[in-house]
Amino acid sequence: MKKALLIIFLLCVSIVANAQNSSLLPVPQQVSVGNGRFRLSSTFTVAVKADPGDSILYFAVNRAFQTLNRRTALYFGQQRITAKDASDTCSLIIRVKQKKEAIPGGDESYTLTVTPQNIYLEASATAGALHGLETLLQLVQHDKEGFFLPAVSIQDSPRFVWRGLMIDVARHFIPVDVIERNIDAMAAVKINVLHLHLSDDEGFRIESKLFPELQKKGSYDEYFTQAQIKQLIIYARQRGIIIVPEFDMPGHITGFLAGYPNLSSNPGQTYQPGPRFAFGDKQMGLMDIMKMINSYPTPSFDPSKESTYVFIDKFLGEMAVLFPSPYIHIGADENNGVSWRNNPDIVAFMQKNNLADTHALQAYFVKRVQQILTKHHKRTLGWEELLSKDLPKDVAVQVWTDGTKMNEAARLGHSVIVSKGFYLDLFMPAYTHYQNDLLVGNLPDSVASKILGGEAAQWAEAVDKDNIETQIWPRAAAVAERLWSPYTVNNVDDMYRRLFVISNQLDEIGVQHISNYERGLRRLTNGADMASLKTLTDVLTPLKGYKKLFAKMTSPKSMSYQTAPLTAISDIVFVDSEVKRQFRAAVKSYLDKSNDADATSITTQLKKWLDHRTAMEPMINKGLLDNNINENSKKLYAVAMIGLDAIKLLQNKEKPSADWLKQRLDALDQMKKVYGEVELAIIPEIRALVNQRMDAEPASYPIF
Amino acid sequence: MKKALLIIFLLCVSIVANAQNSSLLPVPQQVSVGNGRFRLSSTFTVAVKADPGDSILYFAVNRAFQTLNRRTALYFGQQRITAKDASDTCSLIIRVKQKKEAIPGGDESYTLTVTPQNIYLEASATAGALHGLETLLQLVQHDKEGFFLPAVSIQDSPRFVWRGLMIDVARHFIPVDVIERNIDAMAAVKINVLHLHLSDDEGFRIESKLFPELQKKGSYDEYFTQAQIKQLIIYARQRGIIIVPEFDMPGHITGFLAGYPNLSSNPGQTYQPGPRFAFGDKQMGLMDIMKMINSYPTPSFDPSKESTYVFIDKFLGEMAVLFPSPYIHIGADENNGVSWRNNPDIVAFMQKNNLADTHALQAYFVKRVQQILTKHHKRTLGWEELLSKDLPKDVAVQVWTDGTKMNEAARLGHSVIVSKGFYLDLFMPAYTHYQNDLLVGNLPDSVASKILGGEAAQWAEAVDKDNIETQIWPRAAAVAERLWSPYTVNNVDDMYRRLFVISNQLDEIGVQHISNYERGLRRLTNGADMASLKTLTDVLTPLKGYKKLFAKMTSPKSMSYQTAPLTAISDIVFVDSEVKRQFRAAVKSYLDKSNDADATSITTQLKKWLDHRTAMEPMINKGLLDNNINENSKKLYAVAMIGLDAIKLLQNKEKPSADWLKQRLDALDQMKKVYGEVELAIIPEIRALVNQRMDAEPASYPIF
Repeated sequence: MKKALLIIFLLCVSIVANAQNSSLLPVPQQVSVGNGRFRLSSTFTVAVKADPGDSILYFAVNRAFQTLNRRTALYFGQQRITAKDASDTCSLIIRVKQKKEAIPGGDESYTLTVTPQNIYLEASATAGALHGLETLLQLVQHDKEGFFLPAVSIQDSPRFVWRGLMIDVARHFIPVDVIERNIDAMAAVKINVLHLHLSDDEGFRIESKLFPELQKKGSYDEYFTQAQIKQLIIYARQRGIIIVPEFDMPGHITGFLAGYPNLSSNPGQTYQPGPRFAFGDKQMGLMDIMKMINSYPTPSFDPSKESTYVFIDKFLGEMAVLFPSPYIHIGADENNGVSWRNNPDIVAFMQKNNLADTHALQAYFVKRVQQILTKHHKRTLGWEELLSKDLPKDVAVQVWTDGTKMNEAARLGHSVIVSKGFYLDLFMPAYTHYQNDLLVGNLPDSVASKILGGEAAQWAEAVDKDNIETQIWPRAAAVAERLWSPYTVNNVDDMYRRLFVISNQLDEIGVQHISNYERGLRRLTNGADMASLKTLTDVLTPLKGYKKLFAKMTSPKSMSYQTAPLTAISDIVFVDSEVKRQFRAAVKSYLDKSNDADATSITTQLKKWLDHRTAMEPMINKGLLDNNINENSKKLYAVAMIGLDAIKLLQNKEKPSADWLKQRLDALDQMKKVYGEVELAIIPEIRALVNQRMDAEPASYPIF
Repeated sequence: MKKALLIIFLLCVSIVANAQNSSLLPVPQQVSVGNGRFRLSSTFTVAVKADPGDSILYFAVNRAFQTLNRRTALYFGQQRITAKDASDTCSLIIRVKQKKEAIPGGDESYTLTVTPQNIYLEASATAGALHGLETLLQLVQHDKEGFFLPAVSIQDSPRFVWRGLMIDVARHFIPVDVIERNIDAMAAVKINVLHLHLSDDEGFRIESKLFPELQKKGSYDEYFTQAQIKQLIIYARQRGIIIVPEFDMPGHITGFLAGYPNLSSNPGQTYQPGPRFAFGDKQMGLMDIMKMINSYPTPSFDPSKESTYVFIDKFLGEMAVLFPSPYIHIGADENNGVSWRNNPDIVAFMQKNNLADTHALQAYFVKRVQQILTKHHKRTLGWEELLSKDLPKDVAVQVWTDGTKMNEAARLGHSVIVSKGFYLDLFMPAYTHYQNDLLVGNLPDSVASKILGGEAAQWAEAVDKDNIETQIWPRAAAVAERLWSPYTVNNVDDMYRRLFVISNQLDEIGVQHISNYERGLRRLTNGADMASLKTLTDVLTPLKGYKKLFAKMTSPKSMSYQTAPLTAISDIVFVDSEVKRQFRAAVKSYLDKSNDADATSITTQLKKWLDHRTAMEPMINKGLLDNNINENSKKLYAVAMIGLDAIKLLQNKEKPSADWLKQRLDALDQMKKVYGEVELAIIPEIRALVNQRMDAEPASYPIF
């Protein structure tokens, strides 16, 4: 009898623990839930059995220990963990076989075992231990008795070796502290590559000692010094991350040309860093813009002159010493060839060398640069446009727009990094990245063996240092899971549940995604109470795709996005609304089960949306909030009314009349009119209440 | 008739404008309110008539322009202001006679004239123009028609030339980004000196190329590289601020000794950076601590060995090149002489040199160091303990504990910097610093001529990078006004009103004081709704004086404050509660005028406090919030009940019975029991409601 009770007890514990440890993100390879809980107290101690010279490991252990100390406020008696702390009686025992830093392709596996008495973390190499520490921190939970970790046994290693985040620091400069916070966040979700897009038309963002005019004339004084880069590289290494630099060429080089105009294929001009096109004062449509992209004589390096390669050799040689990364990224994207075709010297060079067209000339250029990098002991990486039949096999290809290039490049024997489907600057919800069709399923071995992994990409036309964290986090964590966890981990609702848990953990370690959103709201309300505004903005999301960017770039004022004030609602809100996701879950559940609890929570939320208008109207009348906010606030009020009507029908188990339905659906259609480049995120859920049926979300949204 | 109406209209405008431009902080020397408003629009343009090589001026102008662009979101047509922008038709015309950087004692005056058509900013030197730009930004306001500046004419210059903020980066290391944000905030309130306390027992925080063991063994890897310091110096210069480094000696030097133990007066030992005293595991009282401070053989430099001065010469020589500051601060505080008296060699040295006691020996040491600094073209600055009859006259004295030293040092011919009364780490409300009795009145000319100014001081035993901004800001702005504005500017209520306006402006430019407080609350609620907790913590303030620090330092756990998790309520709340100040203003006004509006706002606030308990109790029952929060929450509830009783009597114009009064006052007295090292800030105001009389606030509070 006692035994039976015990079994039932253990079963319950196991179920509870199961529910509780499932907020891990990314989901580990194998998780076996154990029985009981490891209780954290001030007597918690840590021992490390490893190479005493593994300074990265000790740094990471102390960092995790302090994070735990701060989260629990337990005032641990142990203060700093050193090689002297190796006792078998410690609460947490960490064993690392080999001091070996993180490098894509290195051993990143670890096992983590939590029992009610102890925690054991084991890894063959330093990199795995760092990941295990992050998993350990994600396991910490709280109940009435205090903080604990559920008993569990985890065996973990990544699906892909290259899990990256690209940050464009050229369009808007993103300073050191913001990059550091991104690195902290990356480490928390096991992203191991930070790809810095360091040069573009809009700016050159790194100090060159050999060519100081680069930063002097190309950066408006906003660039990383070499001392800063060295420290950033160390900061990243200490968190298991490598920094891969990108110097975009032969196009996207106005940043280079500001300092060294003679490198240009359009000779005899001077250059100032800035957007590629001057749109002028008239409002332009999408077609005008596409036409311009393909026909504008954007300057490129002159590939016909030997002096170009002398420069590239010296410059990349300097950078190859500065960056320990095995790869250097040379961009090679979006070179339309117009400026080459316009230059008679270059045309003559093509004829002399039997280069049939500018694509062949670009292939020639890439090959020359690849030879230079090989000489400097670096492998070459570039965007998909550098792919050609003759491309040396050791060049890795980053796919960003044409998904078929993934298989093509792999078939040709190139390593592949996938960024198509991972463009964070398109303002798409996390689930679309999570369900990226290039990687969501099982890949044939022949392809899989060539896929290094992928990279979330944050281009910076429409973000600056004050809102970039809100754009990247927590969304990039969904990409991190796609790249780390088995492809069978694929439940969108569960991903979103965990995504907002990790978001709070990132907030705790200092990432500014929530703080910057809230600061943005305080700015908009000018010190007045912001509760009602937040009720509104919590369900507003930026216009998807390039529409938001083009709205600014093509405005009649010909505004440069580099000096535009990114302080409007559309600049500060999250791309994924947590409130929308919670509301969606409740609506889904209610349409499924018709239970009262869901009906109550839905009604409460709808009333909150209705009520926000009461608090907001006087603020608008005082001129505290602008018309875009007013129009969106009116929308939210109207939508909440429709929702309340709809849920009443559902509660009465009535089917709507055709008239009723048409009226509501028409009203919802009218909500498509956009004010201030934001959308009301909860319209699909209101529509579901009206239709009494939840439609699946679209797999993707139009980019233009 | 028309003319009369016009006059009445202008009069009204003038009164409105007067009320509106008064949120300037610090208050300028002279303000004449004009008629009308200058409207900001996207056509706003700026011209600069100045030395085209004045890069600091152009940087500041562009920075202010972007702040304005971001605050107003007007998308100014002009994008970057260069020497080419010098047209007389621009909206804002800036004239600077001489390119001249900020240096204490330089010309900092400016005039700022706003008319409905134009804004004119004029200054003799760059430093004044930078101040004028900050004043201009503080003038920006908003109404139904948009953003504007009221017409006004301002002539301004500071009362004192040295307006400083000292940040202790030794006890807890404060990294570059936090220092940069503090510099931004300092510039906003015209503080012109950043004093960095770079070494102490707990750490050595700057890279030395000559003595690398200093940072290697003295910092736990947390220090500024020379490259970082160079960039910080530039960052500060661009904002009109100089950085004065402090290297504390001959005491407070465990940070030095970790790397170079032979410099010690206690020879033959090894040292690890850490708190001066080991308190052991027993709870110690104040007297025990004071006894220890006076009797503990804390290590000092050995002043009897020539090798000590050889080291200091080389080290300060290196720092003198690194820091352009005309002064170097050598500390010289709290050397109790015990370790000197314990060392027979040092005693013999004293006898040989006719040095009567350790004070004389310290005077000898200081003189030697002053000679070294003179050789390196620097003036010496130190804490008041370095004052002695023979102290060379060019040594400046920073008074921190004994107010009489201000006059004494001035009489002896020394320049004086006042920090007594400006210690931010004592958790005293801003008004006590604002009313600092050393500086609040008119000073006799003989003394005034020697007072350089003052410094707010933020020691870092109990703050780290995550809460230091909340401790410093906005409080340091009250010190800034005391040091800049005429002494006749002295209204505490008005200071507080403006302090919270500036607080929002600092938030807007990125200072993290509000964000870090709110992040701290999110951490405590673990993602749950934090509205009720915030209602409580908005009126909780840290225990005043050293009690909070000692509570940690003397805890039975012998916790080192360097690794203590500073995440409790007492660590994250503001020292000055804005809600308390608003409530106080309402209570004061109501007791004065008995008007219904005040009664309503008081009652609303009291009910909000009452209601917070309803939302909080279930969270506490779930174990989400700890017992200290629970006890303080119960207090707030009880106090709100008393307040509601009291205001009912007042509204009924009843005098309280003796019984009623005794019961309530006793209950309020019982609120003195402290939970979690925080106080309920609104007890004096509740007491005022009960007593039907508002008592003046104490001029100061006990430190121990």
